[in-house]
Amino acid sequence: MTLNRRDFTRLGALGLAARFAPALPAQPAQKKVRYAVIGLGTIAGHFMPAARSTTNSEITALVSGHRDKAERIAAQYNVPPAAIYNYDNFDQIAANPNVDAVYVALPNSMHAEYTIRAAKAGKHVLCEKPMSTTVAEAESMIAACKTAGVRLMIAYRCHYEPTNLRAVQLIRSGALGQVQTIESAFGFNCSAGQWRLNKKLAGGGPLFDVGIYSLNACRYLTGEEPAALSAYASTIDRDGRFNEVEENVSWTMKFPSGVVAACNTTYGGVMEGYFRVHGSKGWLEVNNAFVYEGLHLRAEFGETRLDEPNPARDPSHFQAEAEHFSHCIQSNLEPKSPGEEGLRDMRLITQIYKSAGIDL
Amino acid sequence: MTLNRRDFTRLGALGLAARFAPALPAQPAQKKVRYAVIGLGTIAGHFMPAARSTTNSEITALVSGHRDKAERIAAQYNVPPAAIYNYDNFDQIAANPNVDAVYVALPNSMHAEYTIRAAKAGKHVLCEKPMSTTVAEAESMIAACKTAGVRLMIAYRCHYEPTNLRAVQLIRSGALGQVQTIESAFGFNCSAGQWRLNKKLAGGGPLFDVGIYSLNACRYLTGEEPAALSAYASTIDRDGRFNEVEENVSWTMKFPSGVVAACNTTYGGVMEGYFRVHGSKGWLEVNNAFVYEGLHLRAEFGETRLDEPNPARDPSHFQAEAEHFSHCIQSNLEPKSPGEEGLRDMRLITQIYKSAGIDL
Repeated sequence: MTLNRRDFTRLGALGLAARFAPALPAQPAQKKVRYAVIGLGTIAGHFMPAARSTTNSEITALVSGHRDKAERIAAQYNVPPAAIYNYDNFDQIAANPNVDAVYVALPNSMHAEYTIRAAKAGKHVLCEKPMSTTVAEAESMIAACKTAGVRLMIAYRCHYEPTNLRAVQLIRSGALGQVQTIESAFGFNCSAGQWRLNKKLAGGGPLFDVGIYSLNACRYLTGEEPAALSAYASTIDRDGRFNEVEENVSWTMKFPSGVVAACNTTYGGVMEGYFRVHGSKGWLEVNNAFVYEGLHLRAEFGETRLDEPNPARDPSHFQAEAEHFSHCIQSNLEPKSPGEEGLRDMRLITQIYKSAGIDL
Repeated sequence: MTLNRRDFTRLGALGLAARFAPALPAQPAQKKVRYAVIGLGTIAGHFMPAARSTTNSEITALVSGHRDKAERIAAQYNVPPAAIYNYDNFDQIAANPNVDAVYVALPNSMHAEYTIRAAKAGKHVLCEKPMSTTVAEAESMIAACKTAGVRLMIAYRCHYEPTNLRAVQLIRSGALGQVQTIESAFGFNCSAGQWRLNKKLAGGGPLFDVGIYSLNACRYLTGEEPAALSAYASTIDRDGRFNEVEENVSWTMKFPSGVVAACNTTYGGVMEGYFRVHGSKGWLEVNNAFVYEGLHLRAEFGETRLDEPNPARDPSHFQAEAEHFSHCIQSNLEPKSPGEEGLRDMRLITQIYKSAGIDL
């Protein structure tokens, strides 16, 4: 399932390298990029072992409101107690020469603040998606990193994940002919009490959290930006979970080439994340497409039938993502999913909610 | 894969019998319903052997512009030469006591005319989908059949097909919990020269021909009528095929319960017809869902994993459809997919095209 060197050369030749490229192996002579992890929740639990398994990244500081938890994790990663910060003294990280970058793994509403504080502290920023809860925040994050002269990357795992890259490669190679339509959906039945359901923390409902994968996939699968979009949102379950955010969003997009895409996202339904792409010569499906492991590509075009389960296990996506950002820092390169990529999604998310009649 | 009697009783108890019920076995004592087939194209080639394989239907007349072809088929079905009509002398069928009903298998634009002429000739009408090319035509067809006191059924195969019925049954049984979202698509890469690409004959593009399956499925899966919808249409290929009709349509619908649906249809892409339904307790997919054979249902809910390929071969769907209509005629019952069902789709198709900025 790994793309070979020829595949990547081809991706480069097709102009894809600008948006899709796996991390190159770090040059052994270079010092590892040292990360402070901000927020020690679930996703940080995927990132930290992944970063440790790279050749070019390591965890050297932690930022948490829970000192006990932080000390337990610090022991696992040989992080010295002095490199454990909380949200009050975080800015002191500027004085820590053993931190090159931060990984922002906080609830959405805190992405902007900690990206900007990290930038001001002179640290590069790898920020989880969604980039922010508003377009204005996203713009200020980009500006802050630019002013500080630090790199900003949004943690779009799927940009660095081989099965998603394989789908893009098949499309760009012309194997499917002219792409006409895409369907994509991603969601889950969200249990009560999660920060995701708190609008102040999350920014909005499932489109911010999981629908963003379908939105972003339609953009990388086509290589285009939507020219028009239309959406509906709904809330069915009146059980207290959806007092602040909507339960479902359905939207359709038209791209400049004429490709159309139909997407759903939900916090109320059981839904594997997937996309299906239909071209004049064939189709492909990746299902699952967006979870941490168990990705599976199927395609039919001409006489070719592809059935490619990806055996890679979590946290391989996070490893590829960490490797890429560290490489960019080491080599002074723009990441393949910079802040501007996150900003594009934020603008589209805002448009989708507006079309659905929801005020963010 | 066949639903058992208890399943059907349950469907009835759930109020589904009004829209979904397979034909009951004809009472052997009753005379078979005798059909004139109008239009001897591809779909008639599926219907005729199917009708012959029922216990309650037979082919006793043919209507065609091609006498040679009609005589060849007449010989296969023991249709006497005097029961072969053309489009000029069709109205003489009123005097043929060996014809009870007609099957209208003509290009879409001719459905209204021949339904109305058949009704005036005192014959019941089984009309292919889409019912017509305009809402006004559909209304006049219903009125004509009412005035003439004949039954009108629209040939929605999937209403009589066990895998589609099974999906409806699973949803109504509550196995998936509260349904939240649906995705569905159907299309194909249409070769040049087909009547489907002629707007005067077809009424419009893929939504009339194949997208209607997804539209209709969203309605029978939810048991609801869309409260709102929004659409985009596009044409990518400028190779002469799409001078009159659009190539792609993408639309999203919101139902009164809050269920949302995202759908695509295409005449330019390779696309198996399918639907996916996501509920609070699980999901189901039927893929293929709309073709003549090879239907396949998969579902997951609770600890249950269903993987149910339907081994039924073409023309079993047409057989079930013919059996149902003949039974309705014999027993003086309203068909499960009457003209009003076709009219609902025509109204929605009109709304979808209007939303997409296309004048029909």
